[in-house]
Amino acid sequence: MLYTIDLLGVIAFSISGVLVALSKRMDPFGILIIAFVTATGGGMMRDVLIGATPVFWMINPMYVYLILGSTIFAIIFRHKIDYLRTSLFLFDTVGIGLYTVIGIEKGISAGLSMPICIILGTMTACFGGVIRDILCNEIPVIFREEIYATPCILGGISFFLLELLPIEDNMVLLSSGLIVIAIRLVAVRFKISLPNLYAHEDNV
Amino acid sequence: MLYTIDLLGVIAFSISGVLVALSKRMDPFGILIIAFVTATGGGMMRDVLIGATPVFWMINPMYVYLILGSTIFAIIFRHKIDYLRTSLFLFDTVGIGLYTVIGIEKGISAGLSMPICIILGTMTACFGGVIRDILCNEIPVIFREEIYATPCILGGISFFLLELLPIEDNMVLLSSGLIVIAIRLVAVRFKISLPNLYAHEDNV
Amino acid sequence: MLYTIDLLGVIAFSISGVLVALSKRMDPFGILIIAFVTATGGGMMRDVLIGATPVFWMINPMYVYLILGSTIFAIIFRHKIDYLRTSLFLFDTVGIGLYTVIGIEKGISAGLSMPICIILGTMTACFGGVIRDILCNEIPVIFREEIYATPCILGGISFFLLELLPIEDNMVLLSSGLIVIAIRLVAVRFKISLPNLYAHEDNV
Repeated sequence: MLYTIDLLGVIAFSISGVLVALSKRMDPFGILIIAFVTATGGGMMRDVLIGATPVFWMINPMYVYLILGSTIFAIIFRHKIDYLRTSLFLFDTVGIGLYTVIGIEKGISAGLSMPICIILGTMTACFGGVIRDILCNEIPVIFREEIYATPCILGGISFFLLELLPIEDNMVLLSSGLIVIAIRLVAVRFKISLPNLYAHEDNV
Repeated sequence: MLYTIDLLGVIAFSISGVLVALSKRMDPFGILIIAFVTATGGGMMRDVLIGATPVFWMINPMYVYLILGSTIFAIIFRHKIDYLRTSLFLFDTVGIGLYTVIGIEKGISAGLSMPICIILGTMTACFGGVIRDILCNEIPVIFREEIYATPCILGGISFFLLELLPIEDNMVLLSSGLIVIAIRLVAVRFKISLPNLYAHEDNV
Repeated sequence: MLYTIDLLGVIAFSISGVLVALSKRMDPFGILIIAFVTATGGGMMRDVLIGATPVFWMINPMYVYLILGSTIFAIIFRHKIDYLRTSLFLFDTVGIGLYTVIGIEKGISAGLSMPICIILGTMTACFGGVIRDILCNEIPVIFREEIYATPCILGGISFFLLELLPIEDNMVLLSSGLIVIAIRLVAVRFKISLPNLYAHEDNV
């Protein structure tokens, strides 16, 4: 089941990449690359930094086919994709929850300490979007309006707190993934964001 | 002979990096770095992602000297380099053909599957230019006007088709490299490009 | 003692990252990431390219805590940080000297040749700033007004010249680090920079 959710996340991230690339008027090859890095960039960076090479999508080419398929689908239906916006947001949020948990797991397998594992989880979930924005010549959106990273960090902390309790490993994974998802949904619904450091300058 | 062609590719890529850096009014150190990543960035990314570290130019410092020499040459003769434009285009095209084949070979040696090897070949040939453009604060040119990646992908597919035939390995390498070169020359000569997704919006 | 200086360098680089991120009006998470890559980006790139993974800050989480602390400090006292400008410049310069030497040492341990080790030292000292500028959507400052890389390269060359003399290893490390620092201080004091390639065009 985890694997199915992973694939949903890949689809949602790919389509979000396509939409950004279209807004930059890229050609089909550029769109494909942007979709690819949006979906795989965070996990790829994680694998490179911990030395888990060849990186994950080289070992399981399913990711390549899925991203290629999602990209072609999104290009063809680009004028109708607005109808899917809510579904995409949900897939994306579920993907973030899952990617966070996968990143933490990989860090634990590599024998890394707790804070590093939380960083790896957050990186897996968030850095595809960062690389996408750099390739599109934008300051990464999560550095300006934060709705991604904080849920991942809090979910990562929950993971290690839940591990202290006498519950099963699978339940810990599932619960901390759900915590990421819940925090993000609540934050978006109620427009909660990090404190604005520039409010004072703006008012004067 | 392959090695000689490799060096011609390095020279052409370095000089193309110098020209872009000069147009951005960089200082000599910046120019050198841009030349370096243009010539080595694709192969460096490939080596990092498959775990072939230390990366190739660390093991054979010839690349460093050659790029340094080409950069100094190109800076000194920067006002006359226009006379070399056709030669440079040919070197560049030959370099792309060869880099594609080298990337595929490295993927095969690492035991990776066919689609991943084709991606690695294309990455080796094209991503030096991508990193160059990111460092110069531009949206990578191959994401907008595609004349690089498609020949590499088609050449990569040819490689694996030719391998099915009863011909020698060296001939497969040579032929698929020549296919990349031929497709690119034809595409540039006849201004063939990927379909324009924005034509409709532009006309209205 | 080396370790203490390393930490001073990390603090200075983090704070310089915070100042750049504030000028781009990033949110607290973005500021933290920029501080992080400014302080660790060069060493992280070095470790990835030579295959020394997991990268250094994953093995010793002290770096993570120190950067987090420096960032919070710099955000709180952001309106008063001008008073620290001279201290920060000194820390930064000392950090560059030390990072250069650390990078060279890592290259030697990995069995790499002299020119590659000098490149690794320069990369360790300078590329945190390069990645910071890319994330902030700027052409890296060291590619335009060079005050960083040349002292590192000259210090690296000194390192290998000093090694030929019959002096202790620790003295070689210390002396070449001091050479980096001295050259940078002199260059900044007397506004020495690389030759301006564009002076002629500007005058006409």
